[in-house]
Amino acid sequence: MTSRSVDDHAREVQRLLEPALAPVTEGVAVTRALGRVLAADVRSPLDLPVFPNSQMDGFAVAAESVRAVPVTLPVTATVAAGDAGPRRIEPGTAVRIMTGAPVPAGADCVVPVEDTDAGAAEVTVRVSRRQGEYVRDRGSDVHSGDLLLAAGTELTARHLAMFAAVGTVEIPVRRRPQFAVITTGAELISAGRPLGPGQIYDSNSIALSASLAANGVDVVSVDRSTDDPERFREILYRATASADAVITSGGVSMGEFEVVREVLTPLGGWFGHVGMQPGGPQGLAAVDGVPVLNFPGNPVSTLVSFEVFARPVLRRAAGLAPVIADRLPLAAALTSAAGKRQFLRGRRTSAGVTLESGPGSHLVAALARADVLVDVPEDVTAMEAGDKVRVWLL
Amino acid sequence: MTSRSVDDHAREVQRLLEPALAPVTEGVAVTRALGRVLAADVRSPLDLPVFPNSQMDGFAVAAESVRAVPVTLPVTATVAAGDAGPRRIEPGTAVRIMTGAPVPAGADCVVPVEDTDAGAAEVTVRVSRRQGEYVRDRGSDVHSGDLLLAAGTELTARHLAMFAAVGTVEIPVRRRPQFAVITTGAELISAGRPLGPGQIYDSNSIALSASLAANGVDVVSVDRSTDDPERFREILYRATASADAVITSGGVSMGEFEVVREVLTPLGGWFGHVGMQPGGPQGLAAVDGVPVLNFPGNPVSTLVSFEVFARPVLRRAAGLAPVIADRLPLAAALTSAAGKRQFLRGRRTSAGVTLESGPGSHLVAALARADVLVDVPEDVTAMEAGDKVRVWLL
Repeated sequence: MTSRSVDDHAREVQRLLEPALAPVTEGVAVTRALGRVLAADVRSPLDLPVFPNSQMDGFAVAAESVRAVPVTLPVTATVAAGDAGPRRIEPGTAVRIMTGAPVPAGADCVVPVEDTDAGAAEVTVRVSRRQGEYVRDRGSDVHSGDLLLAAGTELTARHLAMFAAVGTVEIPVRRRPQFAVITTGAELISAGRPLGPGQIYDSNSIALSASLAANGVDVVSVDRSTDDPERFREILYRATASADAVITSGGVSMGEFEVVREVLTPLGGWFGHVGMQPGGPQGLAAVDGVPVLNFPGNPVSTLVSFEVFARPVLRRAAGLAPVIADRLPLAAALTSAAGKRQFLRGRRTSAGVTLESGPGSHLVAALARADVLVDVPEDVTAMEAGDKVRVWLL
Repeated sequence: MTSRSVDDHAREVQRLLEPALAPVTEGVAVTRALGRVLAADVRSPLDLPVFPNSQMDGFAVAAESVRAVPVTLPVTATVAAGDAGPRRIEPGTAVRIMTGAPVPAGADCVVPVEDTDAGAAEVTVRVSRRQGEYVRDRGSDVHSGDLLLAAGTELTARHLAMFAAVGTVEIPVRRRPQFAVITTGAELISAGRPLGPGQIYDSNSIALSASLAANGVDVVSVDRSTDDPERFREILYRATASADAVITSGGVSMGEFEVVREVLTPLGGWFGHVGMQPGGPQGLAAVDGVPVLNFPGNPVSTLVSFEVFARPVLRRAAGLAPVIADRLPLAAALTSAAGKRQFLRGRRTSAGVTLESGPGSHLVAALARADVLVDVPEDVTAMEAGDKVRVWLL
């Protein structure tokens, strides 16, 4: 049987998957863009503020008119936010103005109401103000043509607020890749039904769908196949016809009734052993140009395969923050099988990284408790407490 | 005008808001539970694995039968994953078994196919195996009644995989609080329309909706009111009739036409000044027992108010990770107005925290570039490069 290192297989997955994830731009409404990734540099279509406006409730005047105080000025108008207000005021006069209202030409500062007698027909100003004080100038936040945000940014509420402020209706974002998930195995049944002899509940469909969704992917179909090659082939071709890529689980190892390997090998798929535990049996194929990643069926193997082979490629292609691989000290000694790169399930604690379980690939509860994969190189058989080990943040 | 410190107002907001966010449990399908927060401790309804099963493709035998090797045993059956298989095997016989298939009683280990001649009617075993080898015992992952996951956990793909593996259909999660958003201001118009004199685009509706969604809240309505009290009152009562809480923006300061203050003061609302910049003018009310948070209308003031007053309470109530407030060194000196707690917009860089803008509350572009709020205490007027400052992670 052919075999590969983890790094070699990761490279092959990347080579096959990346072109299928090439950025495609689509427009989405600002109201639906939270968490999406900006597909292009966006420049402002206008100055912000669009017009000079008051930072305070008070009186708009020429600074010149309040140079000597106290001074009493006639109030010629009142302008509230949303009003057009007078186009211009004369020297020696004042306009009552509310926060956010346009400052008329001829006025170049605002005297806050608390520095006046708040008069109606005329106002006595007690404090001088310099030109520009309490006025937000046109374009002082953003100039028309300024870069608002660079391509590749993951959009937060703050970004959306800025886009809304400049009147954006639709934002160019990267289309989320469309994936199909196919789980295989005659032993799988849906939740809510009683287990018959030899049957187990299908957990890989939800594990893969949720993992994809959490990494910027739309899951367009989730199917379950029996071990009948005809049935699998039918589901597979439906998936490759509608998705950018497909992930399957199960049916890849060396036993009999390995439906995924059986169907995809004649189509040029690679099936073999990757030097890791869990997740050793792997497959990789392309059907009508659509990448098909074939993970082993054990639930923990499936999830570890996703973390190691799919997630880094997906996040890079989506412009999302990369998977963090850190070196952290072990809380306790560990031993590891020689000749296999181990991905043990661990947790970060104040005492260091603790292991949640042994290498057994069926321990889904231990994986659920874990927050890191502990990556033990294949030539390492023992590590001491305090030794730094590479961990992948889940 | 009445005034309060940031901490005092934060406490008042918490006191008013927290009871409205008291946990309510609802069931959601496992397929829709990603990112939700578990509402109750959940115990396993079954043993996992449900039955002892093979970890390898190979031959299930009694360890006793392969103690002396090589040994040739008759193959009495083949059992694939999903098969019931024979109930029991006799000593001195073997069953061909696939990964995941049930190990019959009488067999207590599996000999991997590569340690045999892979015979059909009879198989020659070349390597001895001890009891339990390559068998995943019933309950070795989870026992029926074991705690699967504790209340308060934010559900990831790994957790969902575990729930699916034990056959869970619906997961008890905390209902997301239902909020209504009302922006006010005669100057506000919707994107896609040309700006008239004195008009600006409404950005607070999207800023608040997206901020709420990003912190575990469902936004059930988003409305915009003019400065007409009748209109605002009508929208407000519709909102309090259907939401757990309401956030408004605008209409809270000391000027004229302050519709939110005008309508809510007679209903017992508090309106006054909070010693901070931006975000000084604030209001807080309850209408028919529904909390109404009244933020100032300037877009940056609105977002800073949300971060300082609403987000910590929402995250705690939702069981989400708390807002991180860290002390980080400044990249450069800063000055700050005396007597006001400043929330400056900053960015974490390798050289320390840099400021994105001055204290001006209208700088939405600067806020969009920021990733922290720099919290400068009211009695501090100057800080040096390298001084540690409290930052709130956005």
